Amino acid sequence: MDRVTSPDGAPGADPRIPAPPHDRSGGAAMPTVTMIGGGQLARMTHQASIALGQCLRVLAATADDPAAQVSADVVLGSHDDIDDLRAAARGSVALTFDHEGVPLHHLQTLEAEGVSVLPPSTALQFAQDKRAMRLRLSELGLPVPDYADLSGDLGLARGRLTEFGDRHDWSIVLKAIRGGYDGRGVWIVDDRDAAMAVFDEQFDTGVDLIAEQKVTMRRELSAMIGRSPFGQGAAWPVVETIQRKGQCAVVLAPAPGLDPELAAQAQQMALRLADELGVVGVMAMELFETVDGELLVNELAMRPHNSGHWTMDGAVTSQFEQHLRAVLDYPLGDTAPRSAVTVMANILGADEAPQMSMDERLHHLMARIPEAKVHLYGKGERPDRKIGHVNIVGAGGDDLASVRERAERAAHWMSTAVWTDGWEGH
Amino acid sequence: MDRVTSPDGAPGADPRIPAPPHDRSGGAAMPTVTMIGGGQLARMTHQASIALGQCLRVLAATADDPAAQVSADVVLGSHDDIDDLRAAARGSVALTFDHEGVPLHHLQTLEAEGVSVLPPSTALQFAQDKRAMRLRLSELGLPVPDYADLSGDLGLARGRLTEFGDRHDWSIVLKAIRGGYDGRGVWIVDDRDAAMAVFDEQFDTGVDLIAEQKVTMRRELSAMIGRSPFGQGAAWPVVETIQRKGQCAVVLAPAPGLDPELAAQAQQMALRLADELGVVGVMAMELFETVDGELLVNELAMRPHNSGHWTMDGAVTSQFEQHLRAVLDYPLGDTAPRSAVTVMANILGADEAPQMSMDERLHHLMARIPEAKVHLYGKGERPDRKIGHVNIVGAGGDDLASVRERAERAAHWMSTAVWTDGWEGH
Repeated sequence: MDRVTSPDGAPGADPRIPAPPHDRSGGAAMPTVTMIGGGQLARMTHQASIALGQCLRVLAATADDPAAQVSADVVLGSHDDIDDLRAAARGSVALTFDHEGVPLHHLQTLEAEGVSVLPPSTALQFAQDKRAMRLRLSELGLPVPDYADLSGDLGLARGRLTEFGDRHDWSIVLKAIRGGYDGRGVWIVDDRDAAMAVFDEQFDTGVDLIAEQKVTMRRELSAMIGRSPFGQGAAWPVVETIQRKGQCAVVLAPAPGLDPELAAQAQQMALRLADELGVVGVMAMELFETVDGELLVNELAMRPHNSGHWTMDGAVTSQFEQHLRAVLDYPLGDTAPRSAVTVMANILGADEAPQMSMDERLHHLMARIPEAKVHLYGKGERPDRKIGHVNIVGAGGDDLASVRERAERAAHWMSTAVWTDGWEGH
Repeated sequence: MDRVTSPDGAPGADPRIPAPPHDRSGGAAMPTVTMIGGGQLARMTHQASIALGQCLRVLAATADDPAAQVSADVVLGSHDDIDDLRAAARGSVALTFDHEGVPLHHLQTLEAEGVSVLPPSTALQFAQDKRAMRLRLSELGLPVPDYADLSGDLGLARGRLTEFGDRHDWSIVLKAIRGGYDGRGVWIVDDRDAAMAVFDEQFDTGVDLIAEQKVTMRRELSAMIGRSPFGQGAAWPVVETIQRKGQCAVVLAPAPGLDPELAAQAQQMALRLADELGVVGVMAMELFETVDGELLVNELAMRPHNSGHWTMDGAVTSQFEQHLRAVLDYPLGDTAPRSAVTVMANILGADEAPQMSMDERLHHLMARIPEAKVHLYGKGERPDRKIGHVNIVGAGGDDLASVRERAERAAHWMSTAVWTDGWEGH
């Protein structure tokens, strides 16, 4: 990878675009990385960048975005605007992402202008397009659930849906090819009529879908890895993810009782795929473990991911530091866990925001669970919105049930200001 | 503690002073803490503040100060200027410190205006004034090295120095009462003539001194604690500090082979002193362990301290998070170590800055020692200047010698771009 080190010589530099607010080329002279999107992933990447002697530059929509609240180097603008993207990239050595929403053609334009886009558009397209991803995975011989492409001509697509649904006894899921996340863009349907209704409605609004078999699974797993441009790969232990309302709620690290061979297979699949696609940065491969003990690839994310938040306190190197190391072509950090068990629980906005302030809730949490590691995102509370997370790293003698109970109890308290038994499954 | 929660109702608000650049009263509405001084301690406190849903406000001399490079909430000004201090305090719930250099009368003025200064001036004065500190410690029955006050009338002070020097066979140290740190303001003298020369020179420039016996010591220790306004105290394990050129170079956590009774005594001394003085925040009590196995108090710092940097990776709660918890009157976090041994080594500016850039040095370090946790401060390289530190947290089976060797090797590399055996003492 060629690094752009001189702000003046930055590719695509446009004299009409003002220089970023902080030119850090003097003094310590560490490289600047730009992240597109000002969400919590950028916020936590900024935290990691501080230790590496950097300040993360963030392209944020508003000054109140989670990352814009805390970074000294914020470019306000839109990820849909090529000039804003250029302004954010100027003088930085790599452009990377807090989300998958940047139009691919803009990234291709930036690449043509010499910007180091990481992961590159040739890789990122597979994280943006579920149909392309499934096609590519199939070509590579990686196991995916059976699926059908429902894009294109209305009549032909309805025919493919009917054929696919019949074949799977209408135990199917419909997914938007682009733009879905955290349960959005996913429809679990129980019969033909429901499936056809979703299909027709989405067709009318121009949303392309795929149909996918509903997998009879034991649980969901996530294999997170990092990959540098040099081709170095590093995998964290495979974790179990527990979904609620279609989004990640709890992560158990490592996945309890996972067959070591299956764990190694998941890591190797993720590392191999990252190599084949040329991914740079961290990547989450979300997997189904079927009741038969098989793995199927569900989704890909080529950025820090909710299933990797446990690494902030539970691993030697966090996913955020690793992402920076990778996009800077630094050698990757140690992915060893610090403890036999770490549990992450998301703090989600409650259906009705509690009367008690977040500040006061945090105060009470600290009194009850002094070992809880809390990470708040500076976001307003809306139902089911991810506004923070709690990690509990097991200490000597702690079993999974105890760690999980505390993590879930802590997160539930922070969401609702109600103490409950955190988790009744043990 | 009364909290000031309304920016408009902030005490001492002066309509001539512009509001701070980021009013964060909306949205997530977590409290704002202001730290006076933009050095590395503020930089790392900002990192910790992000997890707590905050953004640390920093009063910095320049936009290039270590903390000003990374925080979104920077007030540029001087810690010597009461109006700058007022501007920085406005709308924040607590004013705290990256260094001891703020004039006491300014803090008293702010307190009179209702600003929550933490630690309060009544405590901080003892960290600013070595003579007052020794007097107070003696009153409390805490062990200090023998000392003599050399302030006041020239003739009388010379007489006290002569008497004190003779009594200790001129095995003494002279220290400036105010303003010394990292070896500055400390003179180790070997005989009467050298002592008199230092005394006369400092007297002429108006610097008040004390003389202190040179302690025949086994080693130096540091007991770090946190204390909240509510009076909760929490102590980390006592560490051994290794000084070079008069400043902290290496920290071994916990202090190897320290008698558990002596360790408990050191913690209790620190907790008791913090209580007696009304300290709020974290405090380092630097101690001598004499060859007879006695403890003597050397210095106090009422802020995050170099001897606590190991906690960033080696303890459940870092000193920076704990300092924020304390000044916000949150319950304190778990001070348990994550490992049987953690070693911190400072990265110091080399006598001649290496040709190889810091970026490139970091690259090589990561390749050699993937488990090293590096913390860089964004400071220019000058001889013996603290520009970063490395923590190595021991993993299962690592012994102290191995951990220390890697930490020192890593720090020496980052300083000089030369690989050596990190530490030849094993």
